[in-house]
Amino acid sequence: MVQYCSGLDTGFAALAAGTRRGILEHLGRGDASVTDLALAFGMTLTGVKKHLHVLEGAGLLTTQKIGRVRSCTLGPRRLEVEAAWIQGYRQMLEGRLDSLGEFLERTKGESA
Amino acid sequence: MVQYCSGLDTGFAALAAGTRRGILEHLGRGDASVTDLALAFGMTLTGVKKHLHVLEGAGLLTTQKIGRVRSCTLGPRRLEVEAAWIQGYRQMLEGRLDSLGEFLERTKGESA
Repeated sequence: MVQYCSGLDTGFAALAAGTRRGILEHLGRGDASVTDLALAFGMTLTGVKKHLHVLEGAGLLTTQKIGRVRSCTLGPRRLEVEAAWIQGYRQMLEGRLDSLGEFLERTKGESA
Repeated sequence: MVQYCSGLDTGFAALAAGTRRGILEHLGRGDASVTDLALAFGMTLTGVKKHLHVLEGAGLLTTQKIGRVRSCTLGPRRLEVEAAWIQGYRQMLEGRLDSLGEFLERTKGESA
């Protein structure tokens, strides 16, 4: 079993390439072999394997050799920590905007 | 005004470093000068400027020189597209799990 890093650095870095996001979306429609993915993305096997290695290292997919075919499946991670970080950040920004709105409303009342 | 790229590649790459996420969280509590940030993160001015350049290039912060001080503010982007992509991906995964659950339920009913 491949060791993977569940850190945010590794997760976000894995998402920072259109081809890798495309591979995740493709596997969302069903498991695929490395050869299928290379064909779907018009890449060499070596090229697609590099992307798969990054995704596997981030825990976003696993590969398994069945006979002569290496098959790719999504998981075990489902971008939980990345989603939580972005949500927390956006909530903080909304909180700041709300505070600013309340301040402006209060100031308007005081100056009326 | 600095040109920025609103692409997912640039946004996710900007988030793929703990220091850069820390800078965003720090600025969420209020604007800060480049010197403040260098002190807060125990970095050199050159080091922190490299991270600010990446964040500014992704549209996640802007800098403005006021007198002799360069001040950093969050925005204009608020990780909208990154949040939407991750949400879409996770919804797709949930959809797959729901389908699998329905299939198993149906199969169980048939075999009963």
